[in-house]
Amino acid sequence: MTLPITPVVAVSLLALATTLATGGQDPQPGYRDTPKLPDGFRVHDADRPRPVAVAVGPAGAPTPPPADAVVLFDGKDLSAFRGRDGDAKWLLVDGAMQVNGTGDIETKAEFGDCQVHIEWMAPSPTKGDSQGRGNSGVFLFGRYEVQVLDSFENPTYADGQAAALYGQKPPLVNACRRPGEWQTYDIFFRAPSFKADGSVELPARITVVHNGIVVQLDETLLGATSHRGVAKYTQHADKGPLKLQDHGDPVKFRNFWVRPLQLERAAPK
Amino acid sequence: MTLPITPVVAVSLLALATTLATGGQDPQPGYRDTPKLPDGFRVHDADRPRPVAVAVGPAGAPTPPPADAVVLFDGKDLSAFRGRDGDAKWLLVDGAMQVNGTGDIETKAEFGDCQVHIEWMAPSPTKGDSQGRGNSGVFLFGRYEVQVLDSFENPTYADGQAAALYGQKPPLVNACRRPGEWQTYDIFFRAPSFKADGSVELPARITVVHNGIVVQLDETLLGATSHRGVAKYTQHADKGPLKLQDHGDPVKFRNFWVRPLQLERAAPK
Amino acid sequence: MTLPITPVVAVSLLALATTLATGGQDPQPGYRDTPKLPDGFRVHDADRPRPVAVAVGPAGAPTPPPADAVVLFDGKDLSAFRGRDGDAKWLLVDGAMQVNGTGDIETKAEFGDCQVHIEWMAPSPTKGDSQGRGNSGVFLFGRYEVQVLDSFENPTYADGQAAALYGQKPPLVNACRRPGEWQTYDIFFRAPSFKADGSVELPARITVVHNGIVVQLDETLLGATSHRGVAKYTQHADKGPLKLQDHGDPVKFRNFWVRPLQLERAAPK
Amino acid sequence: MTLPITPVVAVSLLALATTLATGGQDPQPGYRDTPKLPDGFRVHDADRPRPVAVAVGPAGAPTPPPADAVVLFDGKDLSAFRGRDGDAKWLLVDGAMQVNGTGDIETKAEFGDCQVHIEWMAPSPTKGDSQGRGNSGVFLFGRYEVQVLDSFENPTYADGQAAALYGQKPPLVNACRRPGEWQTYDIFFRAPSFKADGSVELPARITVVHNGIVVQLDETLLGATSHRGVAKYTQHADKGPLKLQDHGDPVKFRNFWVRPLQLERAAPK
Repeated sequence: MTLPITPVVAVSLLALATTLATGGQDPQPGYRDTPKLPDGFRVHDADRPRPVAVAVGPAGAPTPPPADAVVLFDGKDLSAFRGRDGDAKWLLVDGAMQVNGTGDIETKAEFGDCQVHIEWMAPSPTKGDSQGRGNSGVFLFGRYEVQVLDSFENPTYADGQAAALYGQKPPLVNACRRPGEWQTYDIFFRAPSFKADGSVELPARITVVHNGIVVQLDETLLGATSHRGVAKYTQHADKGPLKLQDHGDPVKFRNFWVRPLQLERAAPK
Repeated sequence: MTLPITPVVAVSLLALATTLATGGQDPQPGYRDTPKLPDGFRVHDADRPRPVAVAVGPAGAPTPPPADAVVLFDGKDLSAFRGRDGDAKWLLVDGAMQVNGTGDIETKAEFGDCQVHIEWMAPSPTKGDSQGRGNSGVFLFGRYEVQVLDSFENPTYADGQAAALYGQKPPLVNACRRPGEWQTYDIFFRAPSFKADGSVELPARITVVHNGIVVQLDETLLGATSHRGVAKYTQHADKGPLKLQDHGDPVKFRNFWVRPLQLERAAPK
Repeated sequence: MTLPITPVVAVSLLALATTLATGGQDPQPGYRDTPKLPDGFRVHDADRPRPVAVAVGPAGAPTPPPADAVVLFDGKDLSAFRGRDGDAKWLLVDGAMQVNGTGDIETKAEFGDCQVHIEWMAPSPTKGDSQGRGNSGVFLFGRYEVQVLDSFENPTYADGQAAALYGQKPPLVNACRRPGEWQTYDIFFRAPSFKADGSVELPARITVVHNGIVVQLDETLLGATSHRGVAKYTQHADKGPLKLQDHGDPVKFRNFWVRPLQLERAAPK
Repeated sequence: MTLPITPVVAVSLLALATTLATGGQDPQPGYRDTPKLPDGFRVHDADRPRPVAVAVGPAGAPTPPPADAVVLFDGKDLSAFRGRDGDAKWLLVDGAMQVNGTGDIETKAEFGDCQVHIEWMAPSPTKGDSQGRGNSGVFLFGRYEVQVLDSFENPTYADGQAAALYGQKPPLVNACRRPGEWQTYDIFFRAPSFKADGSVELPARITVVHNGIVVQLDETLLGATSHRGVAKYTQHADKGPLKLQDHGDPVKFRNFWVRPLQLERAAPK
């Protein structure tokens, strides 16, 4: 066996090449005048290098929920969720729930620090492109979004692709499977805390594993997801719902469960 | 569907009960006079509550390595490793490598920030108890240990069980499968950095996912693993080998791969 | 471990109970005057005991085709099939092909003795009942049907349920998974042979494995599937197409492959 | 997609080539003077073409037993078996049972017509060759053998390789995985019946599916397996034990279950 250490170098070169190659073709014209993020890039920055695509193996069977998980959706009904006007009305299709234009849905139960497991599938055959292709999202506390998007061979701005902290941070790599294949997110979330005066004591931190690959590693969230603006925090309670977005595309979800975590809540590191 | 939010409470109560119940039975006599850790417990503290056991589903097929992984062991040979006297001499058994008393083995290649995937199996039927049952370890940089132990219904000190940062921090829960079943570790590691004078600039941080469950979430390592002492850092290079421990028990490993990560190396958060 | 041999007895008693219980409620009125089959029951006989349901485990990942298989559908296109007016026009949905009212489709290639692997899914939520729920079929030589039907808790006549040789022979047991879950058929088929005068030399024989359970074991086919009549043979060539039925229900299929078999063609046993 | 129908032809040509190529190198000298079988070949005939090898996909997770199965071995104990001197004494290793020189074991319970599922693994690294490599066997009624052998790139006489009806009929193809990988047998068995005078009324018939591929399709057994002689029947009861052979090689077995079948027992077809 020989050790191909070169991928690392290859990845860097590819990222560079991607930057150079796309510099002149702005997939989202106008995203050069958005505000700057702390890392120097702008929100939805067209000049931000897009993560390198990494092929992953085929989807396996659904991961069974461990014994301490709260099962939110097991294929049978939407009773754990509420929708725009009361009941959640997404389609039940073949053991999955599918976005159908009836609006976002969110859990009736609320969660603080937690591990979230969810599986999703982008529609196949594909329709639309860039942000119009298989767009949805998983929102912690109903406000911190992990982007869902069909990013398989689908160029879009880096902080808007699958597993991005939308508008804040692209994933380390693009681990997207093809449309029509099930994909997994495992999200480990440390909720933010606030001082008595409503200012942030500790910002939220998040790790995202996409199809078995870590793509966000203990990233600090800048605040609640916003559109074309820099995220900001607004004080909220210790727990909040999990929200799934209806962005108009018939994305499917299945095997959705959450494990509340008992994390130490000491001083920031 | 009803939402059994009670597990969280149940977990806390159980942990409390465990503490009370084991207070008088010290499985490792003498571990009450070890030095104190920053979190207030002593190294191998017999009074530290043991993590609650969480039943997980059965092992699935091995996770195929993604395209950017460096495959260290695929069942065929040990050519990526070196042993005590040159070649690694662990047993090749049915597509796995098995500890056989010939000493620790470590990778010839070196890695810095990385995602490590490894699968391991404790011997069945079991032999021995506490730290003498299915003991081994995965060492990042050859010195920061994630403990391997058959912790299935096997009481031992909390910071010495499977997925503990040995002698530093127990896992959040005990996600161990039975002996004789394959188990997975996915480890996300941020290497430490040092100043010119050899002092620590940024300590190492680690996340461990055991059988699909997060059990260490961005924990800060106190230093290199030591025995009955508090871990300390000693300056080292940007990269180091991955080491597997020969602790005398015939533990098996398979499907060992690593993905170098391109993490930002900014100021500490 | 104790050996629960009693299931066998339980199965017989259940079958008996089923017969008694359904004797008075004919789910398909009129099916008492169809012609008699050689085994004494009538075609679609309402008095024929329905096979006992046997719960099987959850669907695993798709079975990869072996190296000698002809892959007919791998999720990408319908180029191996033709439809009513030329091209096959079933829907491509998420790596599956779905019945959509455009008529039956059949393979362009032809096969004789063969092993057929196909996976199918009945629509969820369910619509309709009895023969109107998730109805389709796999036809060897375009004429010998293995029934596809959502037979999960769906009473219908015994020789018309999933894995029946339609109108000829019910399966040994009902191994149907719930609608919305993938199911597998593995079919082993010995083609019939004919004499020079067109009469049957050797009838076709068939074994069907449904979700890993044998449900037809080397059954002799009475002839080409017909509706409410006893099947009859008409001479045909050594090879023929595989046909999938459009019965109006949006059944899905995936991972469809076939292995031509080199069977001895000696005298009948 | 194009349809590579040519494999069929390729298979035939390869089989022919194999015959020609091995004609002069007899791997088992002396096996040219054994008695003739009804199909014209001799027992263990060195001139019989060896089945073509067909690569199959990797092993998946163990197949869960359906609800009507009698579980004979689930990894925990050997209580369903007896050995040479009373208790079965094979090794329990990592959820499997392993041949260890203590002799054959057989089930305490007896079965007639049945479906048998069993998983086995040949030792890796390999030791020995031909019949000396990973040899064991599954015996229906304690006397009709389906051969277990590490036939991966291991030439031996055709009717002695994995999934052969030993000494009677080679498998249609060689579907063996590598040593060290789990393999599955699904065996569908119709027991023989005898007349009052002890002569055979209906011979036993058997179908064997090896790693998902049919390799014996409703073959008629010539009688109880014998060594270098033609199999013969001796009258026996309606049910008998399942036996696993200790041939001296440390073969492993797991996930062993059986489903009694309620087959029609009409006149022979």
